[in-house]
Amino acid sequence: MKLLHTLNNTKIGIIGGGQLGKMMAIEGKKLGLRFIILDPQPDCPASSVVDEQIVGDFFDDEKIKALADKTDIITYEFEHIYADLLIHLIEEGYRVYPSPEALKIIQDKYHQKEFLTKKGIEAPEFREIKGIEDIYRAIDDMGLPLLLKSRRGGYDGKGNYLIKTEDEVQTAYEMLGGDEKLLMVEAFVDFRMEISAIVARGAGGEQKIYPLSENIHENNILKTTIAPARVSDEIAQKAKSVAEEVVEVLDGVGVFCIEMFVDKNEKVLINEIAPRVHNSGHYTFEGCYTSQFEQHLRAILGLPLGSTELIKPSVMINLLGEDNYTGNAKIIGAEKLLEIPAAYLHFYGKNISKPQRKMGHITVLDSDIEKAMEKAEKARGLVRVIGEEAIIND
Amino acid sequence: MKLLHTLNNTKIGIIGGGQLGKMMAIEGKKLGLRFIILDPQPDCPASSVVDEQIVGDFFDDEKIKALADKTDIITYEFEHIYADLLIHLIEEGYRVYPSPEALKIIQDKYHQKEFLTKKGIEAPEFREIKGIEDIYRAIDDMGLPLLLKSRRGGYDGKGNYLIKTEDEVQTAYEMLGGDEKLLMVEAFVDFRMEISAIVARGAGGEQKIYPLSENIHENNILKTTIAPARVSDEIAQKAKSVAEEVVEVLDGVGVFCIEMFVDKNEKVLINEIAPRVHNSGHYTFEGCYTSQFEQHLRAILGLPLGSTELIKPSVMINLLGEDNYTGNAKIIGAEKLLEIPAAYLHFYGKNISKPQRKMGHITVLDSDIEKAMEKAEKARGLVRVIGEEAIIND
Repeated sequence: MKLLHTLNNTKIGIIGGGQLGKMMAIEGKKLGLRFIILDPQPDCPASSVVDEQIVGDFFDDEKIKALADKTDIITYEFEHIYADLLIHLIEEGYRVYPSPEALKIIQDKYHQKEFLTKKGIEAPEFREIKGIEDIYRAIDDMGLPLLLKSRRGGYDGKGNYLIKTEDEVQTAYEMLGGDEKLLMVEAFVDFRMEISAIVARGAGGEQKIYPLSENIHENNILKTTIAPARVSDEIAQKAKSVAEEVVEVLDGVGVFCIEMFVDKNEKVLINEIAPRVHNSGHYTFEGCYTSQFEQHLRAILGLPLGSTELIKPSVMINLLGEDNYTGNAKIIGAEKLLEIPAAYLHFYGKNISKPQRKMGHITVLDSDIEKAMEKAEKARGLVRVIGEEAIIND
Repeated sequence: MKLLHTLNNTKIGIIGGGQLGKMMAIEGKKLGLRFIILDPQPDCPASSVVDEQIVGDFFDDEKIKALADKTDIITYEFEHIYADLLIHLIEEGYRVYPSPEALKIIQDKYHQKEFLTKKGIEAPEFREIKGIEDIYRAIDDMGLPLLLKSRRGGYDGKGNYLIKTEDEVQTAYEMLGGDEKLLMVEAFVDFRMEISAIVARGAGGEQKIYPLSENIHENNILKTTIAPARVSDEIAQKAKSVAEEVVEVLDGVGVFCIEMFVDKNEKVLINEIAPRVHNSGHYTFEGCYTSQFEQHLRAILGLPLGSTELIKPSVMINLLGEDNYTGNAKIIGAEKLLEIPAAYLHFYGKNISKPQRKMGHITVLDSDIEKAMEKAEKARGLVRVIGEEAIIND
């Protein structure tokens, strides 16, 4: 499959039209690229910046085929799609990046971990769960707490259950739909820090890696990203080489996010892999010379990768829909936020705000990372996203 | 008229859908703003990033009224529109920024200069021309060379004629349509440098000014912008205070570009004023913490103005349609350009390339301005925009 190496009226098809697709399109439009998205929501965030939207389900093979027919290259902004459908497209001569083969490995977290550990990459201990008795067996071997996970389809902690006592096994198994869904367990890592690396890899195998980011989650949703991560050079070096190795063994083309744990013994362990641009890389939009979004487009088009150098230390905070509100999204306090120098607001344009929904983000730059963190916390206190004509949740 | 102070589903109407409108929409989309443009070309650059386009002429009062009815606030990306129409809209309670009163003063270059010099701002000597005999009289008084100018509607040197000998008077007068059009003459400034200042002013009168840019024209079209301009601190200070004064006396709200000459005696003289974002401010997109496009939106919405600090010295070069080609626009060499670190390509997405048409631009950042200039010249040599299926011009 030849790469395109061109910007001339090149049409990119994106499966998914959320904020990741929106930011990708914004970056690509500067370069003169055209975009068509496939998304079931006619008013999805990307809809307002793309040339065309195919309104349809991500699993609708005819709609995906239509997207491929209308575009020069297909990519995706989320990984819960049928990899086999994309493999079929490749066989028919269409271009799809990252490769559906890599996607297929990543989609099933058990296969993913199996694949990576076989390649010598360290991950928390894990086991396949074929029935509830396998969980008890795993507890006997691995102890508690133990993380029960859906092998497919999870995000933002959905599909995970941290089992702390044997009493919770039945509940956990039922909540994750164990009788119908594939499950696995993973040793719980009492981590010192969660970090991630955004890695871009071109078709020729060339790689560029961004400064590591340090991620703070709350209720399993990313709350804050600090870049660069406050780790020793040694840890940074190790984490970067793990991340590069992962993308290499997957033969990935495009941008990947490699989430890792740094445990209390300064060991670096793989947590999860996303075959796409990632929330923990949003800081690159203003914080680095090339954003992860432009970088992804460069990689899949076969263009040279851009500089991943940091302009200034950056802190990104997510703007989540406030609790107790579901309704027409409204941002409050933006006018105060915008007084902070080098604070950047992204408001995704989702119509409805719901508790904990990702509605936007703020990135703050400062030469001093501690000051950037202070400014970001100040920013967090200034801005709220609520739902107007609010329906109070129970 | 109350300013909006909000980003919630706010709709901006832009008169004009060229590259300036495109970049404004790109910046505004990050903030969640919505855009509707009025432009006669259905495939104009901004069309691919806005929520809606009204296809219509800029002088069509019904279309402009429709744009106002569909949006919360009207702005414009070029100044050759009927100011009276906009004044009428204001009277009816619509929001229009910059104010049509300021636009009206600026649109007629003779009125503009008259207004400014009355306010004590220095400009090259100028005269009204009511008939061809006024030109001869001006030559007697002011000497040669002398610049004959259309008072309205010129851009990129169109509407200007530099009269070097008396023999040329008749030709110049006819070429600029002197019997029908309002003309003026201006003393020719044998300048040492052309500079410009991008100034933002909010509704409360607060101002932020960007680093001065040094502009190099070729065939009257901007070829290169170097920021910051290589002038002494004294000149920079003087030019900045002139620029701020201009926007102040115009009571301007929004982003303005003040083009100035630095003459051989280090005197700063007003050249032209644009009541809008400007080509010489494109470098701010990547070179400053807030781009002129976001800044304009902040100003007209009554939001706080952003930092105008330079991230790094920046050089912007325009990508013009190559001579001898008119046809489907094609960029050649982008893959080589993108190898240069911190070189940013904007390709506007105009379908047809014509000789000297502005098709895109490149901005290069470097800590060392001389290196930025070298990189920019290298970039210029790498990229071409041609028309495919070329029709060779005579």
